[in-house]
Amino acid sequence: MRDVAIVGVSQTKFGELWDKSFRDLVVEAGVEAINDANMSGDKLDAMYIGNMSGGLFVGQEHIGSLIAEHSGLTPIPFTRVEAACASGGLAFRQAIMAVASGYYDNVMAAGVEKMTDVVDATPAIAAAADREWEAQQGVTFPSLYAMMARRHMYEYGTTREQIAGFAVNGHKNGALNPKAQFQREISVDAVLNSTKVASPLNILDCSPVSDGASAVIVCPAEDAKKYSDTPIYVKASTQASDTIALHSRKSLTQLNATITASRKAYDIAGLEAKDMDIAEVHDCFSINGLIAIEDLGFFEKGKGGQAIEEGLIARNSQISVNTSGGLKARGHPLGATGIAQVAEVTWQLRGDADKRQVDGAENGITHNVGGTGGTVAIQILSRNN
Amino acid sequence: MRDVAIVGVSQTKFGELWDKSFRDLVVEAGVEAINDANMSGDKLDAMYIGNMSGGLFVGQEHIGSLIAEHSGLTPIPFTRVEAACASGGLAFRQAIMAVASGYYDNVMAAGVEKMTDVVDATPAIAAAADREWEAQQGVTFPSLYAMMARRHMYEYGTTREQIAGFAVNGHKNGALNPKAQFQREISVDAVLNSTKVASPLNILDCSPVSDGASAVIVCPAEDAKKYSDTPIYVKASTQASDTIALHSRKSLTQLNATITASRKAYDIAGLEAKDMDIAEVHDCFSINGLIAIEDLGFFEKGKGGQAIEEGLIARNSQISVNTSGGLKARGHPLGATGIAQVAEVTWQLRGDADKRQVDGAENGITHNVGGTGGTVAIQILSRNN
Repeated sequence: MRDVAIVGVSQTKFGELWDKSFRDLVVEAGVEAINDANMSGDKLDAMYIGNMSGGLFVGQEHIGSLIAEHSGLTPIPFTRVEAACASGGLAFRQAIMAVASGYYDNVMAAGVEKMTDVVDATPAIAAAADREWEAQQGVTFPSLYAMMARRHMYEYGTTREQIAGFAVNGHKNGALNPKAQFQREISVDAVLNSTKVASPLNILDCSPVSDGASAVIVCPAEDAKKYSDTPIYVKASTQASDTIALHSRKSLTQLNATITASRKAYDIAGLEAKDMDIAEVHDCFSINGLIAIEDLGFFEKGKGGQAIEEGLIARNSQISVNTSGGLKARGHPLGATGIAQVAEVTWQLRGDADKRQVDGAENGITHNVGGTGGTVAIQILSRNN
Repeated sequence: MRDVAIVGVSQTKFGELWDKSFRDLVVEAGVEAINDANMSGDKLDAMYIGNMSGGLFVGQEHIGSLIAEHSGLTPIPFTRVEAACASGGLAFRQAIMAVASGYYDNVMAAGVEKMTDVVDATPAIAAAADREWEAQQGVTFPSLYAMMARRHMYEYGTTREQIAGFAVNGHKNGALNPKAQFQREISVDAVLNSTKVASPLNILDCSPVSDGASAVIVCPAEDAKKYSDTPIYVKASTQASDTIALHSRKSLTQLNATITASRKAYDIAGLEAKDMDIAEVHDCFSINGLIAIEDLGFFEKGKGGQAIEEGLIARNSQISVNTSGGLKARGHPLGATGIAQVAEVTWQLRGDADKRQVDGAENGITHNVGGTGGTVAIQILSRNN
């Protein structure tokens, strides 16, 4: 198995991008990643695209071929990968396997979603839940995560303020990220007083509806210096599944797929949770960020809220979490998120994160969740080969 | 890179399966493949699922997690792959790369589509074309392939009867396949006198709307004898892209992605077109079957019609084409087709094809097309390691 490194990354601005189409977004991100890798397009051997629901959002499937045409990169293989909001993380994994196997050398993984072309994004998003047993019964994602929040408060005494604190941390970082959808700070009070969505979650606990794309180029680690002075090495890439329906699980306060995938990743990388300097975690709702920092092993189960309150996830604290702003502030174009997480960690490890740069970060982890945890993808990245 | 072998295959009956849901179909195929491999489910390390449009057909994305739950195989990784009607072929390729890379040992690739839960399947199918430049202008797939047929007739003198002959050949084989949607023979006259769809194509030139699933289990070639007395070896697995829009191409009478992917596959396998004993080709419309037998190198460009007329694609002739019945007679549940092609070639090479068995087949090829050729996946399989 060949070792793999990242030699180029990119992200479009995330937000309500009325003047950019689905296909425009991928091509913009792709070109930027190619430039970042000091590469030309004809050096690419294959491309993977993470996208959740081109079908329901823009009436378009066969997304690989669409992008093959509009990037001008035919006849190389283009493959679309889907796992709801973890589509990007899985596309990245497939790119890694394509290189590790020896099938291809230079492979791009991109992620994209165009969510603002529909009047109501909810039905498409709900397709990430069990259609027959959840979505058709009227359950939406805010309500599923609200149940997880209630249970976490009940079991561990987690406070409403602590949950809100995760969103506050994201916005504090997002304020420094020129590609974030929301570049402004918010307060715990603002979260608590914002419009109620599904009690106890308010609108400022929820990631927004976003358009955007992101791209990453990987190649064999031994070739990486050809394209980048500071290649970032993929130390582990793992994935686990869980039931799609929340009601099928024994616990509402942990994601077993996060625990399984992250423990395997630490094992493969020969690193521990405490070795991580930065983490991009999947805070589609604030409570999921809180659960993630526990499940990933940064804090004991039930102590995530306290850690947030004590500032232990702030930049340059115990672990710098969601320096990009996270899904809440950077934005959450579903299929793009897993790739954007990899891009952010790469920028941080390269020292290219400008005003939001963490001091001396060596190792980072990305945590990308589909649905309520039916799919989780974990990547561990490092400056060190 | 590790060599890969097929140790189990399955296919549900294809057809209008009113009493089976999307999830039922995958689980049925999966269990049957596990049994065929003399394996237990807990030996599986990962699963790939080819599916075109769960979103538009049944309102369901996050298909990996759905199947993880309903197969009882959590927490192993489940990944859905999409490339319109080539989704199955690409899922199979990802399974191969997962094994070749060393990431996983025993991997299942399944394909599924449930097309009969909507009143009109056309809008979902049209999502395989360029939504903005083709589908929204009123172009449907029968009309796109009709233009290809007209042009082939104009350029090469191909006759309407020769095109019809491809469907006749498929039905002749399908009549012997207990899992085919249509198990009856048809005549050239029947095709010519059937309802017009998009001139020159009639209803009997068109593959049907189908429900169904199929599954394949692959493992490292060196382990294959543990699970199967007659493992079938993957000699090559390739993929190529082309423009999604038909109007962007220079030729309407060939699929460049077929030519690119098949030439690369022959090269990797160290075999030639003439070494193929059997071929499962993508006859979503009869004309596409005719074009395929030319593009795959079995017959010279422009001579496909004559070859059909002379019986050179019949069972046990020059090359046995679509012994399963092909998309036309076996049925075409979009995401399942690429996997079902692999299953048929495997049965033939193992000598398990019962009444439709080809004599002494050693090597076979599968040809799986997305859209009008925007994606093509090719697999070359052999009895010989």
